[in-house]
Amino acid sequence: MSRPATGPQVAFRDRMVDAGVVVPMGVDGLLGKGRAFVEVFSGLDALLTAGVAGEGHELFRFPPLIPRWVLERTDYLRSFPDLIGSIHSFRGGDADHAELLALLEGGADWAQALATTEVTLLPASCYPLYPMVAPGPLPEGGRIFDVLGTCFRNEPSADAARQQVFHQREFVHIGSPDSTLAFRDMWLERALETLSGLGLEVRSEVANDPFFGRAGRMLAANQRATELKYEIVATVGDAEHPTAIASCNCHQDHLGAAFGIAQADGEVAHSACVGFGMERITLALFSAHGTDPAAWPASVRGRLWP
Amino acid sequence: MSRPATGPQVAFRDRMVDAGVVVPMGVDGLLGKGRAFVEVFSGLDALLTAGVAGEGHELFRFPPLIPRWVLERTDYLRSFPDLIGSIHSFRGGDADHAELLALLEGGADWAQALATTEVTLLPASCYPLYPMVAPGPLPEGGRIFDVLGTCFRNEPSADAARQQVFHQREFVHIGSPDSTLAFRDMWLERALETLSGLGLEVRSEVANDPFFGRAGRMLAANQRATELKYEIVATVGDAEHPTAIASCNCHQDHLGAAFGIAQADGEVAHSACVGFGMERITLALFSAHGTDPAAWPASVRGRLWP
Repeated sequence: MSRPATGPQVAFRDRMVDAGVVVPMGVDGLLGKGRAFVEVFSGLDALLTAGVAGEGHELFRFPPLIPRWVLERTDYLRSFPDLIGSIHSFRGGDADHAELLALLEGGADWAQALATTEVTLLPASCYPLYPMVAPGPLPEGGRIFDVLGTCFRNEPSADAARQQVFHQREFVHIGSPDSTLAFRDMWLERALETLSGLGLEVRSEVANDPFFGRAGRMLAANQRATELKYEIVATVGDAEHPTAIASCNCHQDHLGAAFGIAQADGEVAHSACVGFGMERITLALFSAHGTDPAAWPASVRGRLWP
Repeated sequence: MSRPATGPQVAFRDRMVDAGVVVPMGVDGLLGKGRAFVEVFSGLDALLTAGVAGEGHELFRFPPLIPRWVLERTDYLRSFPDLIGSIHSFRGGDADHAELLALLEGGADWAQALATTEVTLLPASCYPLYPMVAPGPLPEGGRIFDVLGTCFRNEPSADAARQQVFHQREFVHIGSPDSTLAFRDMWLERALETLSGLGLEVRSEVANDPFFGRAGRMLAANQRATELKYEIVATVGDAEHPTAIASCNCHQDHLGAAFGIAQADGEVAHSACVGFGMERITLALFSAHGTDPAAWPASVRGRLWP
């Protein structure tokens, strides 16, 4: 599904391209990153690392693919079918290969001749954690993880802040109903503080995931009514349409039940996470402070590159 | 296509899993990385960065996806169809969605109902550079790039050194026949020096890409005869079957012609690259020095964490 971008969003993207901050790749929603972008991104990543130093989080880095059965085990296909990325490849011998090349040369949709693989793209950074943690039981107090994932959503857009591939740094707590809610609320404050410390004008608001279709409208309304999801928004090029740059989420026992994870007391585990949209925060910084990081306020530079 | 792993390779993988260096994810060839792995990987990346400091390379970081037309423009589908990753997603309304969920619930191959998207997985880190550089003409002396990509190859294996997703740090030169050959030869020496400085027993050998099928055997023989590809090999768990941890390649005018890139004098550009297999080098270090980086030789630690 392609998403229309506003005029100011397109103008911002063009300004970033002209300055070499990002590089168009020939498809909406795929952008290369130049040196200035990479340096800000790395500074932001290091700042988040420093912020949790000494807290003993379990650190893992997972690839941008997950087993297909993990996606099937969640509600992702039910809730967000239009966003998934399924990986397909060629299986066969020389004769099948000749047929594939004939399709390619004839301008046909050759990819429909491919076979389904065992893997899909990663929808959110925390997904690989749940099968890893199952079946528990969790230790008293639960577990807290630090992950940075490369996520995919099939939503081509000319808005630089809506890329098909993006990095999500997440801190994830799997534990009890009380401890996960407290974790989410603590991180909402803490994330606002971290991001406003970078000179961003941020605010939090109740939000919902982009559930698919008719049934999705009810799921979205329910998610808002129960205030399970908060987003932190800031300007990325278009002040009238602020962009979510981080989110704080309670999953209740949704994932604990899907993967069969037990708390210390044997009850189904709850989970919560804070997710930092690394590309979006980086772009919000360029939007707020200009295309030359060397000219950014000393307080911002000091936080990114202490 | 799945690749059999040797007994010592499987034993090495199990040792790394037991030590928490890597985490199995439920599908062969997908591994999560624990803190020790991530720290060694980061040290290696920083070492490579320091090695080219002041050389003025153009630095870019691209996502793990490329436009489908870029893959079609190269010979990849002809040479390595079994390794590709094509991205498919859902397109349709509520009724189509209900059909998709019925396939899922019936245990059918639901992914075959998905539509082809405009993107595929990245096969090698340098691919996004060629459309970016085209049509030239290049400046005198050509251009040199620094890229780090997350690449995919569809070859599930129990060998930890053969992951489906892996990071390739590449230095790439696009220029004249002479300058690209000199670049490749210079990097062959330099890479051997860098890797042996990390206490790895390395050697270089003439190599070939894993071309597909009957026609592929001739392509492979031709590549070896012309010595276009050298690999640097080291032990990753199995001393009798060393693993390629880096490669130095001349592409001649193969990619320059495919993307229509002109040198300064108007002739078709040549290209060459050195690629460092980041996961493989990291694992070679664990294989050589043990599972606890704090106990590695001071000379190795000093290079990774100066």
